[in-house]
Amino acid sequence: MTGNMLIAQSGGPSVVINQSLVGAVLAAKTSTKIVEIHGALHGIQGILDEAFIDLRAEPEEVLLRVAQTPSSALGSVRRKPSADDCRAIFRVLAKRDIRYFFYIGGNDSAETANIIAEEAGRQGYDLRCFHIPKTIDNDLLCNDHTPGYGSAARFVACAVRGDDLDNRALGGVKIDVIMGRNAGFLAAAAALARQDPDDGPHLIYLPERPFTLDRFVADVAECITRHGRCVVAVSEGIRDPDGRPIAEAFSSEIDPHGNVQLTSGALGENLAAVIRAKLPAVRRVRADTFGFIQRCFVGCVSETDANEARLVGSVAVQAAVGGKYQNGTVTINRLPGAAYQVDYAIAPLPAVARHTRSLPDRFINPEGNNVTGLFLDYARPLVGALPVTARFNALRNRRA
Amino acid sequence: MTGNMLIAQSGGPSVVINQSLVGAVLAAKTSTKIVEIHGALHGIQGILDEAFIDLRAEPEEVLLRVAQTPSSALGSVRRKPSADDCRAIFRVLAKRDIRYFFYIGGNDSAETANIIAEEAGRQGYDLRCFHIPKTIDNDLLCNDHTPGYGSAARFVACAVRGDDLDNRALGGVKIDVIMGRNAGFLAAAAALARQDPDDGPHLIYLPERPFTLDRFVADVAECITRHGRCVVAVSEGIRDPDGRPIAEAFSSEIDPHGNVQLTSGALGENLAAVIRAKLPAVRRVRADTFGFIQRCFVGCVSETDANEARLVGSVAVQAAVGGKYQNGTVTINRLPGAAYQVDYAIAPLPAVARHTRSLPDRFINPEGNNVTGLFLDYARPLVGALPVTARFNALRNRRA
Repeated sequence: MTGNMLIAQSGGPSVVINQSLVGAVLAAKTSTKIVEIHGALHGIQGILDEAFIDLRAEPEEVLLRVAQTPSSALGSVRRKPSADDCRAIFRVLAKRDIRYFFYIGGNDSAETANIIAEEAGRQGYDLRCFHIPKTIDNDLLCNDHTPGYGSAARFVACAVRGDDLDNRALGGVKIDVIMGRNAGFLAAAAALARQDPDDGPHLIYLPERPFTLDRFVADVAECITRHGRCVVAVSEGIRDPDGRPIAEAFSSEIDPHGNVQLTSGALGENLAAVIRAKLPAVRRVRADTFGFIQRCFVGCVSETDANEARLVGSVAVQAAVGGKYQNGTVTINRLPGAAYQVDYAIAPLPAVARHTRSLPDRFINPEGNNVTGLFLDYARPLVGALPVTARFNALRNRRA
Repeated sequence: MTGNMLIAQSGGPSVVINQSLVGAVLAAKTSTKIVEIHGALHGIQGILDEAFIDLRAEPEEVLLRVAQTPSSALGSVRRKPSADDCRAIFRVLAKRDIRYFFYIGGNDSAETANIIAEEAGRQGYDLRCFHIPKTIDNDLLCNDHTPGYGSAARFVACAVRGDDLDNRALGGVKIDVIMGRNAGFLAAAAALARQDPDDGPHLIYLPERPFTLDRFVADVAECITRHGRCVVAVSEGIRDPDGRPIAEAFSSEIDPHGNVQLTSGALGENLAAVIRAKLPAVRRVRADTFGFIQRCFVGCVSETDANEARLVGSVAVQAAVGGKYQNGTVTINRLPGAAYQVDYAIAPLPAVARHTRSLPDRFINPEGNNVTGLFLDYARPLVGALPVTARFNALRNRRA
């Protein structure tokens, strides 16, 4: 089938989402089945508004520079299409003879692609509809990991390594709040900051395990007894034993998907206040919330992540023009063996839509306040080696 | 004079403070006048406790790796010595035959060095006492700029460039709160994130100009009318027309120098709440507080800053053993001319102690909500070129 192509980006940006966009565009330019290559601005909003740009007209050197640029170069959106939206989308697609549609994003975006694909089926409109995975949360089903995670995890690891050195110099308790509404993958990546046995983060709290203030205070007190200081990595999505987000009480912002906005500094500040109240002997308690800068920071990119993000874009286009699949999502699968290696496959859209994946039990320690060595083995190749840091020989393993 | 050397680090860490430490140690190792080379742990606290390590015993390769490591490798302290402390310090110095003392830090550290030098004079103890400059705030008098600033400014510029791309993708208003209690140099560095004329940060608020909420809301509204979005860089030290820090109402932490702790997320959250209330048509308002990670992030370093930090350490030692100066502080002076070039000099300790420098008027626009081209010319060589980012040709200068 010959026809035009439309591609768009959705959800929270990442450092490598433009790699996937450019990977798809470069692959499309080599296919005889794809005529025009349109980019819709701000996801489905741009389709509804017919706000398209001609990506075939962009010079190769611009494409390659955009690929290295963080955030969504076409703009993004947080909106699920209604039934009315879908009918409007199809009028646009049919008018433009668009037969290849690619939507880059997380599980919400996979669901949007799925709704569009189902609507295409109902209307008898021949459309190849593919989701291209992206999420710094690393929470898509059917994937070993997702593009965007490795680079965001690298930011977290670099920030926490620096922060642990800072805490070593000035002492006390430091609490770092890290993104991840439902899955602890990004907070877990803080563990990659460790180099020496007494390096922080000393405690890691994840949405996958119930969080109580009593346990938190006891853990911090025990760490101070052992190390004379304490660096804590906390996922913004930590929950109480009833499953209610701890941060929920401190934030009133709701996003268009009905999710409470967790990124405010209130969670960290409140946890710090608890430590100040319960452990008054600790002279210095500080909190940072890494916030939005952890997903688009310029110059902090995992090369593996960038390469894989480029590839999932081109794999999606190859699958769409290949004829074997009408719809689907690209998945990344890790191959068994000592050396890190992946391959790519196509899964049905509903397999990744709607639901999310959690950090597996084998990656969490029995106490529920740290990660395991298996997690470190899993995450290291995704993040790459960190810049070298060192301590004086005379100070190695010395208590703060 | 032949004798032993003592060196220590003080105040907030930076990415390059260990360059200065190692620069001093490497220079000391080449001098026949310096016998033992001691490092005191946690600044003057380590002198009082006689917690020293032997820096001559550290292998060269460890020194060079420590130099590249963020934060204060000897540990830091926030404490001014009392008269009693000074007497105790001299008992330790005399006992150890320490004749060369170096203290790395900001203006508080210069004051500490000055107090120790004065006490040495009163007691007739022959001591060469030098301050080695360090402050990410860039607020030392007598200096064109200070080691630590270029790398922290680079973090700010990289974060804001990524954040501006993020805001371009998702729209709305984004507020970034940046360190700098009294001087706006670090917040001003956000301007280095700009590449295209419509890039953010669109507004920059500095401690050097009075801040009012009415003016802030009007500025943001005007920016949204022009660009359809708004990225704001705010110094944590912004003040109302009476000179009272805006953040003060939201924080109750006091540091040992009597300063209110401004780094909590409350300032940004409250400014965001004002925009939500006053400009309800803006669908998305977010705030980030860059916090402590902007001063020790691993892997974000200005090469110029690292080189200069190394040099000020060795210049201090050369001055101390040279015989021309009994006490002093190393200053960095920019030479006139098109190409960036500096030289180093020695100034008296009281010249940099106690007082701080503000962002000069010529670096601030007449409206007081942005920097000038002169500031960009000043700051660019200190920060270095940022990683390349790009937008599609079709989207350049297009309104969000």
